[in-house]
Amino acid sequence: MTFENIPYKIYLSEQELPKAWYNLRADMKTKPAPLLNPGTGEPMGFRDLRGVFCDELIRQELDNGTAEIPIPREIQDFYRMYRPSPLVRAYCLEEKLGTPAKIYYKFEGGNTSGSHKLNSAIAQAYYAKKQGLKGVTTETGAGQWGTALSMACAYLGLECRVYMVKVSYEQKPFRREVMRTYGASVTPSPSMETEAGRKILAGRPGTTGSLGCAISEAVEAAAATPGCRYVLGSVLNQVLLHQSVIGLETKAALDKYGVVPDIIIGCAGGGSNLGGLIAPFMGEKLRGERDYRIIAVEPASCPSFTRGRFAYDFCDTGMVCPLAKMYTLGSGFIPSADHAGGLRYHGMSPVLSQLYHDGLMEAVSVTQTRVFEAAELFARAEGILPAPESSHAIRAALDEALKCKETGEEKTIVFGLTGTGYFDMTAYEKFHSGEMTDYIPTDGELQAGFDKLPRVPGLD
Amino acid sequence: MTFENIPYKIYLSEQELPKAWYNLRADMKTKPAPLLNPGTGEPMGFRDLRGVFCDELIRQELDNGTAEIPIPREIQDFYRMYRPSPLVRAYCLEEKLGTPAKIYYKFEGGNTSGSHKLNSAIAQAYYAKKQGLKGVTTETGAGQWGTALSMACAYLGLECRVYMVKVSYEQKPFRREVMRTYGASVTPSPSMETEAGRKILAGRPGTTGSLGCAISEAVEAAAATPGCRYVLGSVLNQVLLHQSVIGLETKAALDKYGVVPDIIIGCAGGGSNLGGLIAPFMGEKLRGERDYRIIAVEPASCPSFTRGRFAYDFCDTGMVCPLAKMYTLGSGFIPSADHAGGLRYHGMSPVLSQLYHDGLMEAVSVTQTRVFEAAELFARAEGILPAPESSHAIRAALDEALKCKETGEEKTIVFGLTGTGYFDMTAYEKFHSGEMTDYIPTDGELQAGFDKLPRVPGLD
Repeated sequence: MTFENIPYKIYLSEQELPKAWYNLRADMKTKPAPLLNPGTGEPMGFRDLRGVFCDELIRQELDNGTAEIPIPREIQDFYRMYRPSPLVRAYCLEEKLGTPAKIYYKFEGGNTSGSHKLNSAIAQAYYAKKQGLKGVTTETGAGQWGTALSMACAYLGLECRVYMVKVSYEQKPFRREVMRTYGASVTPSPSMETEAGRKILAGRPGTTGSLGCAISEAVEAAAATPGCRYVLGSVLNQVLLHQSVIGLETKAALDKYGVVPDIIIGCAGGGSNLGGLIAPFMGEKLRGERDYRIIAVEPASCPSFTRGRFAYDFCDTGMVCPLAKMYTLGSGFIPSADHAGGLRYHGMSPVLSQLYHDGLMEAVSVTQTRVFEAAELFARAEGILPAPESSHAIRAALDEALKCKETGEEKTIVFGLTGTGYFDMTAYEKFHSGEMTDYIPTDGELQAGFDKLPRVPGLD
Repeated sequence: MTFENIPYKIYLSEQELPKAWYNLRADMKTKPAPLLNPGTGEPMGFRDLRGVFCDELIRQELDNGTAEIPIPREIQDFYRMYRPSPLVRAYCLEEKLGTPAKIYYKFEGGNTSGSHKLNSAIAQAYYAKKQGLKGVTTETGAGQWGTALSMACAYLGLECRVYMVKVSYEQKPFRREVMRTYGASVTPSPSMETEAGRKILAGRPGTTGSLGCAISEAVEAAAATPGCRYVLGSVLNQVLLHQSVIGLETKAALDKYGVVPDIIIGCAGGGSNLGGLIAPFMGEKLRGERDYRIIAVEPASCPSFTRGRFAYDFCDTGMVCPLAKMYTLGSGFIPSADHAGGLRYHGMSPVLSQLYHDGLMEAVSVTQTRVFEAAELFARAEGILPAPESSHAIRAALDEALKCKETGEEKTIVFGLTGTGYFDMTAYEKFHSGEMTDYIPTDGELQAGFDKLPRVPGLD
């Protein structure tokens, strides 16, 4: 094995941790489109959103101009408990592949929540607490976000109510139990607890749920509970803002060793990890300072970027949320039940959607058996058992590294390893036993979703 | 919260990683007693052990004189993939307890195996590979050791066959699946595959297994398979030697900030984590350079230190292994089925047994409901979901910190947080639902085990 003058893991000191989040929107020439009121088609302002979101988070959501937003000291203190996360040089993986490419990954799975989600969970819980609220509600898909939020709420003494996509609730009983260890209440979604849930169940009695359904239920529950607000683990501008800590640390660590990446890769469900990882790099690109290839990787079974429409759509299945302009498969889209990993949201962050639309980044979709092949190869080489979500990024990084092997190019590839797969062993078992299949939705199926895209008053 | 000039987490740089293991035995005035041949009562030498263990590991097992044993470069490279592990100052826990004590924990759960076991797994697998062997067999209890060994074997391309204590095999299907992800074969023990297993099952048809049973099966399987040797995750001198990397890093990190601990605490099953953590501190104590309180913590349901006998006993239930002089409950001892955590071995490392016998360390036992109370409190304060094993050390650390609260003493407490509890959610669930009970063996039950201690030819 050849070692350069670069350690396996680049750690920043606590002093080098970011003191402010970076708001990518400040540098975007075309800003992400505003959230719209589905009834009137009017952009939603601070007052319109107050019933659902915490005040300070609405301010962050709507702020397209401030580039640096200071991280409150209390959140910095919490970050210091598990950050900086290491930036790892994948020497073993490079050797196994026999590639001249230099591969780095930013590993966000080293905290108990097992993923990057904690970066935004603590911020959202902090602002809820500061506003004097009693608790928050949320949805969770594979369970990473719910776990992270439960931890943050336990730390701050907030109530936490999680609507968990039913298929995950059943496939991941231990994930559920972790959330309960941190004191959260967990309900499989769709449930009979909310009007949205009852309506969805009446329409599709056997449904295994979707993030869109769970969001409808969580929003309804928040609105119905005094002293309670709704928080979301991805998609929103505020979440990407908090996740910028990933990219800021990555850039600082690379700068420390004079490394400049050629390609930056992240998996994309709602887009929070990718948006956070690429933020400072995309900022340089937007300001014309430097160019990078930036690649979003999504499941072939839930291909919002690569096969979706860039249009206004509901953020949720129950159609109780605002409309967001994004790449979407339609708010009624539910990935096939054989889809084992996360990344199952029907839409995509409006910020990333706009950047993709403007040609500033690329997107690829990958089938899940290829994703698990990459996961296993990575686990055996690098010793980290990756989450299926993260393994989408691994797959794309391997593909790029193998291209370098063919061409002999020594490209530097950085990818986001968002989390660990400890709670995903059912999916791994399916892969090992050969029972995993690859379902790719047909054009007709996708068209059915597009046909139901909402008509926006004043826009149509 | 008051912060001193000490970061949450003290990381060493890769350059500061230990280059040699520290062999505590070199500084012991009374050496640990040798392994004996159960038939003849003669000390077992290199040749006697070659059929079961790898050559280099036997040399390490028998070497009571060399203080520093260089870590081969290949193992150092592997260590760099997940080490140094952080030494964390538990500011949040201290605040929650309102104690003037300063609490540090060395966190070994940050790698995929989820525990400190990887430190010895890679060493043992490396020497097996270097000797040209095809594979290794082993036992595993809660699954940490089996997982670690599977990872190490995957990395080096060795076959790995794991006999897993049946109760864990059934309670932890996902743990089993992780081992399979790394390519290991996993068999519930006792099994019908080996003579030892069949004999144990004939005698106790409904048994849920024990580490002692699984060891017998793994040793038999190794002896019966050409190119195969047996490796063990704890108890043996060689394992404590490898685990000294924990203590060496801990001491280096504390020294860096001029911190001198008053109390050092570790959980103890077979003793490998504790023996590794305390090694350099105990060395100073043995050499008369400095004094520390050193506390072993064990389950009240498997109390080898606090209620066992210091005597020669079989290392395994099937009585195919050598005799070791250690604190033991008798090789037939099986903890009550309601015992949820690990640390279920009937004996204790001969090195630690000798040190305890010589009054150089203390031991306490704790009941499991108090252990899970501590685990939950710790999780909510520090954000890490601890393994039940590790939570024994947390319990004792909390108890010491609470004593400081009463007396006002500002003691510095260091404990080993050996691993994460991601695969122990069944036990957490039991605790949450109030179904967890505390079984403490009666004197009569223990006496039955002592009555069956082997008679050693020439010693009795």
